[in-house]
Amino acid sequence: MTTLTMENPVFVIYMVAAALMVLKIMLQGWMTVYRMLKSNSGLASLEDLQVGIINKDPKPEQLEINDYVDRSRRMHRNDLENIPAFLVCGLLFVVTGPTIMMAKILLWGFVGARVLHAISYATKQTHEVRATFYTIGSFIVIVMAVLVLQAGIKLL
Amino acid sequence: MTTLTMENPVFVIYMVAAALMVLKIMLQGWMTVYRMLKSNSGLASLEDLQVGIINKDPKPEQLEINDYVDRSRRMHRNDLENIPAFLVCGLLFVVTGPTIMMAKILLWGFVGARVLHAISYATKQTHEVRATFYTIGSFIVIVMAVLVLQAGIKLL
Amino acid sequence: MTTLTMENPVFVIYMVAAALMVLKIMLQGWMTVYRMLKSNSGLASLEDLQVGIINKDPKPEQLEINDYVDRSRRMHRNDLENIPAFLVCGLLFVVTGPTIMMAKILLWGFVGARVLHAISYATKQTHEVRATFYTIGSFIVIVMAVLVLQAGIKLL
Repeated sequence: MTTLTMENPVFVIYMVAAALMVLKIMLQGWMTVYRMLKSNSGLASLEDLQVGIINKDPKPEQLEINDYVDRSRRMHRNDLENIPAFLVCGLLFVVTGPTIMMAKILLWGFVGARVLHAISYATKQTHEVRATFYTIGSFIVIVMAVLVLQAGIKLL
Repeated sequence: MTTLTMENPVFVIYMVAAALMVLKIMLQGWMTVYRMLKSNSGLASLEDLQVGIINKDPKPEQLEINDYVDRSRRMHRNDLENIPAFLVCGLLFVVTGPTIMMAKILLWGFVGARVLHAISYATKQTHEVRATFYTIGSFIVIVMAVLVLQAGIKLL
Repeated sequence: MTTLTMENPVFVIYMVAAALMVLKIMLQGWMTVYRMLKSNSGLASLEDLQVGIINKDPKPEQLEINDYVDRSRRMHRNDLENIPAFLVCGLLFVVTGPTIMMAKILLWGFVGARVLHAISYATKQTHEVRATFYTIGSFIVIVMAVLVLQAGIKLL
């Protein structure tokens, strides 16, 4: 039985969730770029202090850490700690043949949790709020990984 | 021929290895949380210094880098540099149709190397010990990538 | 219809692109190791200051940030922000059944953009040069994610 095709409704749910999460990672990069340009700081490399279209009046302070820019980099790092594992684990979860209801709860639950985590982080909500959404997303990936592991171990 | 199904024993070996590595990434996040709570330090954002359930008596020093917490973040970063590439490369390696023996050596070899790397890092073994397990894991991914590349280039 | 097999020429194009990008991530790790050994600095952990085969004459300054080594780590981080998302998104893009021409433009375009980004970064080109190749790679992943999203949403 082949499950990784668009004829499988569970795979379609995964496709939509995965595409949204890929967009989340990529757009986080552009949020960092936007914040670097807007604040004219938070640059990463010495050569970025050359005069150019992006940087018309370079100053050494532009290399210092700026929370406005660094917050977007921390959000990005948090994405990298969660989303790639979700993307692969979600694909394997589809192969195990879950019900549509189960797939919707776990896959869309993860997307929702990560969107709310990003909003909490960007708007500087308390640690408790951000941690709650992080926890939901993390637990969903752990549950999917355990389901994949169980399905695999049975067949070894 | 379809290879990404649970009827294929090589895919089952991959599923188990991939699920274990996804769990490794996710649990590394929780090791950081545990160490932040235990040492009451190593926080990432200014707003984490607000009084709340997690942080009852905030102090500015909690934002300073703490090796106990930062070690877990470095382990996490090392995972991110190796595991997502393994997860995707391993899936493509399954598609090339390796023998079961070959799949077990490479896929379980990677899992073993990363577990030993994590233990070496957490228990502060010398650089040489940690580097040995890093090297084994890295070489396995490189070998799989070369096998996938060879199989693909022949058919271009 | 099953699309994730070596009989599908679009999948073969993806296999080659993905294997090259996995090698890029892994070799970036070795560039960091090479630069650490060559400059004898840029170490990450306190225990790396022990005498051993790798480090015959340890000094505390070896833990300070060294741009030569840190540049390779920044290149690596930039890879992690782009390549894992590309790897999964590219696979889903193959499932949507693009034409061979489309697949070659997007998948090989990404590989080319990332190789040129790495050369620009390693040779300290201006921010504008590096940013141009980053932008091309990032836009390709965004385009693929939107195509996957469209294909999926239609079938929900």
